[in-house]
Amino acid sequence: MITEYIKGLHILGEITSVETEFLTDDIMFKTIIDKAIFDESLNKLGEVYHSFDNKGFTAAICLTESHIATHTWPEYNRLTFDVFLSNYQNNNDDKTRKIVDIIIKHFKSDSYSTVEITR
Amino acid sequence: MITEYIKGLHILGEITSVETEFLTDDIMFKTIIDKAIFDESLNKLGEVYHSFDNKGFTAAICLTESHIATHTWPEYNRLTFDVFLSNYQNNNDDKTRKIVDIIIKHFKSDSYSTVEITR
Repeated sequence: MITEYIKGLHILGEITSVETEFLTDDIMFKTIIDKAIFDESLNKLGEVYHSFDNKGFTAAICLTESHIATHTWPEYNRLTFDVFLSNYQNNNDDKTRKIVDIIIKHFKSDSYSTVEITR
Repeated sequence: MITEYIKGLHILGEITSVETEFLTDDIMFKTIIDKAIFDESLNKLGEVYHSFDNKGFTAAICLTESHIATHTWPEYNRLTFDVFLSNYQNNNDDKTRKIVDIIIKHFKSDSYSTVEITR
C-alpha cells in the first residue's frame, strides 16, 4: 500500500523545425501521440485539438496519468510541448522520456531544449 | 507587425490544503476558472474534466492562449496546477499571475510553491 505521495515527472520542451508541414498537421501529430499513448499503456480521458488561422495548432490531452500539451507556431518554425505523467501506482518516468523523444523526432527538430520538473 | 516570437509565461505550482472538499469538487473549480477566463478576456477552446474513484479530479483546459491544467490528490491533501499563457499579440504575464493567485486562494492552501518558466 502506497502511503506517501510520489512526485511525477513533467518535461517541458521547445523545438525549432524548418519542416513546417509537421507544425501545421494536427492529424499527423494526433496519430503518433495516440499510438504512443496506446503503446505505453496510458489512459486518455479526453482531448482538445484546435487549428488556428496561421495554420498552427494546439492540443491538450488529458490522461489518467496527467496531461500532454503542444502549441505550434509555424510562422516562427517552433513549438512548445509538455509531457507530465504522475507516478501514482507505477513509476512512469521512462514513459515520459519516451514520449518526449517521439515528439522531438516527429517534428524533425533542428534544435530543442527541455526542462525536467518533478512535482 | 510582430516579426519575432515572444516567449510566454508558464507557472507550475504545487499546493497543499487540508480543506479536501475543494480538492474533490470539480464543479466549484470549473466555476472559478471559467469566471477567471471570462474576466481576463481569454478564449477557451475546450476542456476535459474527470473525477477519479479516490474523489480527486483532473482538468485540462485548452485556450487560444495555451492551457491551464490541474490534478488533485485529496488523499495526500495536495494538487498540482499549470497556467501557461502565450504572449502572442498581447503580453499576458499579469493574467497568468492573476489566475495562479485565484487558484491558490480557491484551494485554501496551507502552503504552496511555484516555478516560473518563460517559453
